[in-house]
Amino acid sequence: MIIVMSPGATEQQIDAVVRKIAEYGCEANVSRGVERTIIGAIGDERAINQELIDAMAGVEQSMHIVKPYKIVAREWHKENTVIDISGVPLGGKTVQIISGPCSVETQVQMDTAARFVKESGCRLMRGGAFKPRTSPYSFQGKGVEGLEMFRRAADAQGLPIVTELMDVRMLDTFLEWNVDVIQIGTRNMQNFDLLKEVGKVNKPVILKRGMSATISEWLMAAEYIAAGGNHNIIFCERGIRTFETAYRNVLDVTAIPVLKKETHLPVIIDPSHAGGKAWMVPALARAAVAAGADGLLVEMHPTPCEAWCDADQALSPDELNQLMTELGGIARVIGRDI
Amino acid sequence: MIIVMSPGATEQQIDAVVRKIAEYGCEANVSRGVERTIIGAIGDERAINQELIDAMAGVEQSMHIVKPYKIVAREWHKENTVIDISGVPLGGKTVQIISGPCSVETQVQMDTAARFVKESGCRLMRGGAFKPRTSPYSFQGKGVEGLEMFRRAADAQGLPIVTELMDVRMLDTFLEWNVDVIQIGTRNMQNFDLLKEVGKVNKPVILKRGMSATISEWLMAAEYIAAGGNHNIIFCERGIRTFETAYRNVLDVTAIPVLKKETHLPVIIDPSHAGGKAWMVPALARAAVAAGADGLLVEMHPTPCEAWCDADQALSPDELNQLMTELGGIARVIGRDI
Amino acid sequence: MIIVMSPGATEQQIDAVVRKIAEYGCEANVSRGVERTIIGAIGDERAINQELIDAMAGVEQSMHIVKPYKIVAREWHKENTVIDISGVPLGGKTVQIISGPCSVETQVQMDTAARFVKESGCRLMRGGAFKPRTSPYSFQGKGVEGLEMFRRAADAQGLPIVTELMDVRMLDTFLEWNVDVIQIGTRNMQNFDLLKEVGKVNKPVILKRGMSATISEWLMAAEYIAAGGNHNIIFCERGIRTFETAYRNVLDVTAIPVLKKETHLPVIIDPSHAGGKAWMVPALARAAVAAGADGLLVEMHPTPCEAWCDADQALSPDELNQLMTELGGIARVIGRDI
Amino acid sequence: MIIVMSPGATEQQIDAVVRKIAEYGCEANVSRGVERTIIGAIGDERAINQELIDAMAGVEQSMHIVKPYKIVAREWHKENTVIDISGVPLGGKTVQIISGPCSVETQVQMDTAARFVKESGCRLMRGGAFKPRTSPYSFQGKGVEGLEMFRRAADAQGLPIVTELMDVRMLDTFLEWNVDVIQIGTRNMQNFDLLKEVGKVNKPVILKRGMSATISEWLMAAEYIAAGGNHNIIFCERGIRTFETAYRNVLDVTAIPVLKKETHLPVIIDPSHAGGKAWMVPALARAAVAAGADGLLVEMHPTPCEAWCDADQALSPDELNQLMTELGGIARVIGRDI
Repeated sequence: MIIVMSPGATEQQIDAVVRKIAEYGCEANVSRGVERTIIGAIGDERAINQELIDAMAGVEQSMHIVKPYKIVAREWHKENTVIDISGVPLGGKTVQIISGPCSVETQVQMDTAARFVKESGCRLMRGGAFKPRTSPYSFQGKGVEGLEMFRRAADAQGLPIVTELMDVRMLDTFLEWNVDVIQIGTRNMQNFDLLKEVGKVNKPVILKRGMSATISEWLMAAEYIAAGGNHNIIFCERGIRTFETAYRNVLDVTAIPVLKKETHLPVIIDPSHAGGKAWMVPALARAAVAAGADGLLVEMHPTPCEAWCDADQALSPDELNQLMTELGGIARVIGRDI
Repeated sequence: MIIVMSPGATEQQIDAVVRKIAEYGCEANVSRGVERTIIGAIGDERAINQELIDAMAGVEQSMHIVKPYKIVAREWHKENTVIDISGVPLGGKTVQIISGPCSVETQVQMDTAARFVKESGCRLMRGGAFKPRTSPYSFQGKGVEGLEMFRRAADAQGLPIVTELMDVRMLDTFLEWNVDVIQIGTRNMQNFDLLKEVGKVNKPVILKRGMSATISEWLMAAEYIAAGGNHNIIFCERGIRTFETAYRNVLDVTAIPVLKKETHLPVIIDPSHAGGKAWMVPALARAAVAAGADGLLVEMHPTPCEAWCDADQALSPDELNQLMTELGGIARVIGRDI
Repeated sequence: MIIVMSPGATEQQIDAVVRKIAEYGCEANVSRGVERTIIGAIGDERAINQELIDAMAGVEQSMHIVKPYKIVAREWHKENTVIDISGVPLGGKTVQIISGPCSVETQVQMDTAARFVKESGCRLMRGGAFKPRTSPYSFQGKGVEGLEMFRRAADAQGLPIVTELMDVRMLDTFLEWNVDVIQIGTRNMQNFDLLKEVGKVNKPVILKRGMSATISEWLMAAEYIAAGGNHNIIFCERGIRTFETAYRNVLDVTAIPVLKKETHLPVIIDPSHAGGKAWMVPALARAAVAAGADGLLVEMHPTPCEAWCDADQALSPDELNQLMTELGGIARVIGRDI
Repeated sequence: MIIVMSPGATEQQIDAVVRKIAEYGCEANVSRGVERTIIGAIGDERAINQELIDAMAGVEQSMHIVKPYKIVAREWHKENTVIDISGVPLGGKTVQIISGPCSVETQVQMDTAARFVKESGCRLMRGGAFKPRTSPYSFQGKGVEGLEMFRRAADAQGLPIVTELMDVRMLDTFLEWNVDVIQIGTRNMQNFDLLKEVGKVNKPVILKRGMSATISEWLMAAEYIAAGGNHNIIFCERGIRTFETAYRNVLDVTAIPVLKKETHLPVIIDPSHAGGKAWMVPALARAAVAAGADGLLVEMHPTPCEAWCDADQALSPDELNQLMTELGGIARVIGRDI
């Protein structure tokens, strides 16, 4: 940690900081510059409570040098982590396209959707049984009944399933229905109690980025899960909130190379929620794969116009098939496949 | 609802939209303009699923005219709601300053803090027993033990208490310890299951604004609580996330007059978390009261430099006393008191 | 234009709005709903001063239905515009990669750079003679002397040149040195006097997006140029400002499909300024081409470590060559070439 | 400057950085930590080109310790600067309310407005002759004719005038008409050539904050003016761009205490452009004065409903008078007057 003292800091104040650093088991390196004195804390700086340092007299600012995340950091784990999702590898050479409807509606809809997912060449299926909706008066998902429909439809096609967990009290039910990948939604990225609980189970977790979460906060949210023992974490960028109103969110493709540098864990993209309109999805999906994403979460509905939720952002089965061809081409250009 | 058709929309497409509106029990008003046809849906437009309309062929965009919130809307409840917090009114003529430390540390700290809160003239006390921390390796709060210390310290001074609930499974414990006001933190503003649960109890709720929540989303989050039967909701603005890096958050004072226009419920401000530094708090607190806030949440610690959490943002007891004098003066200028 | 009246609007207020609409030469369609009255203005709504309508008694809000831009809108010009840059087409099937150093430094540096640009297969060269720098104490560019060096180096390789114009008084000099494409930088996107002047000349203009400009404002800035008679406008997305601090800007790839839908003019991307680090450039460049960009502005320096400006974001000649291969592969997947 | 080396940085890379620092005339302090080596550059770090350091092999990141601004910094000029505007002091004990219409329309309108400004107790008048409009088809201001009207109306009441300069070529005309305060608008905050020119004249300058300019960028823009010799600079916060769509901008009151700490120059607020609606102005104006602003720019129109520009954000003369009373009360609470 670097501590920058104010221009008029006294020797007493500098000494107090040096002693405080020693209390945390670190050594101080004092560097007296022309305008300011800088104090470096050498040792395990994660032990230092930065807020306490900042509150000391004569301190102008302080900066951590070491990254606050550990288990998820590539610095400590150089190789890419490949996660085994009931036999399907995510994070390796193959880019995995996870497809399916926004929400589970009926058994027929799910059966049809699962068939289309399979036919398109996707190896994983998505679908929501519990839906986070802005309004309490909107359709909130089919709940446990939906899980059951989803499981049945996916099993018939041999597809592992991805679905969102919103309530910590529902985790056992998810395990009973053998959900293959637990999704933590954007609104729950910092629901720390939920993160701690999924950190205790042995299931892959997709951790969606909060609407305005920084890369650092997102990595720390993953660290919450990892600290519990579950290292099967998949980051999912789904568009961030900005000033722009012409589209729902801004897909942050820069997050892909940055995350791949910072963490050994897989990174996937949700182009459907990012743009919010089906006609934007192919361009965003191609961009994501070209930028190095390990997978995609793409909404597809057998009959988009009749979807109960996010009807205007789902691809039709035909559109998905065409997209798969393009994505395969792009993957090959960068030495991958789908 | 207003539906704008694309310039080239066909008569068939227009008819399909008119029929769909009728299915929702509304009447259509078709207005053929020079460049576009506009369809107005007359009736209870909240019944219409906008996403399905947007997904129809020939539709360019649609807009809701009626606000999506109902119980919390001033439109349907003209008078200000004054909430009774164990005998202390919030939302009336008196601006309530809620003060106390960021987190519960020890019984001595809480006892001392409670005495200072009382002496400063504040009528409500804040303090965190469960702390949402960015890092899993940071102090997470004293938990239930903290609730007990807090209750004891506040009772000795006759102060109702405000504390944050993060985990839905902890609600019963909060009721046992008779927490007077349940605070929902910024990271949980859209933790819908938590909102639904506090909607079922008969306790005032402070609903902090999400870091990048729009006014509309915030009102809808309150509507989740209200829809469950609990109308004792207090909005708390605590700084929003922007591009600025010179301070932690940007306190959004514009939210005060806007919320007072949109809802009948009280609006308070947290100047401590907004700026993130104690020296910014007085200016922000004065601004909030001048702009019409019904109350403030101000961090005060008996000895800020030793606080276990957010040490650099807590006021000292003396600073709080001085601030109270200024706030009283400002309140009187606009016909209120503290 | 749609005008939504407040719930309690009187007949007199409604009549006043209807009369005002008539004054602007439009016809009013009044639709009395259950909760609100809606008034539609039929005719050339661009003639209506929205602010005056919003200021009328009883008006809750108003919305334009017709887009405010005209010449740049695809609605009125369905075909893609291909701009001829001294013989090089931009906006057609071929994706154009415009490469070169951030700033002109010396004749040797520019000669070497031009040679590398040519060898890489790029057909256009970029370089800054006038540099917009955050600090008045930073290197401000070589000025006119730089233009001369640039012109000489590019001519030797037969490359048209792109360079930034910051000061309206320098336009004649740009024409004298026969700058092939005038770049308007992000800080000047709404420097309306500058836009008006470049609107009067017959030179292609690259209009960079303002740091936090909406798509609509950007299109309107282009409309300023177009309204002067110069329709040779190229949009360039270069990263937007958000809350994220891990990288300089967030490259907004969603802007690509959205702009291609809204305007017939070409759209290019600057991946170098977006991320701000050379190691991010290949991923962002690939994403841009995959999403449908018509071209890229890529910083390349013969010896990046010695660049006088933005040293850490320039590719080396070798890195550029490798990138060109990948971009060619991606272009072919979507039916284009480079 | 602090340079953080990557975990695997070699001795050679460390030596290269040390040598580079020496080239800039600084001394290096090398601190070898457990995980990383940190190099401190002691001396005049403003001389170091950070981009070149960041581009060196083995460098992870670097941070400036000294602020990049000098003339405008309070660090070097402890006392508040009070600017003399043709006899009216700005930046001292008295909070100055600058009032007037958005744009100059007619001589009668300006004469009436000037009378109301004077009667309300304001000592300075605002009005726009050149208007920056999003659309090229909107009213662009009365131009030089407007300056003349404004000057005549203000002279009759003895009021100094504030008006916006957009085009560097118009500066001489501003001096001829003896504009008392030159306003640089939000869209031109980083129009560096314009800043340089107003830096050469001896007139107070109001520098509005760019829509998404950081505090640091804003201070550096002022430094451009100051570096030219003109130190009569007034900062004006006018709302920043965020994700919120319920109001035009978010008034950033936190900027007030932060700027007062960083610079000795006066800070004023424009509550009219911030919120965008007249009914929000009183709350925002009160908040600004309570937070310590040295002045306000408030739009007032003799008949708001007929204003040619921003009709819905101007106060009526009566509303201004009432606001002045409240602002006087708040100013007195914090030891100031109006």
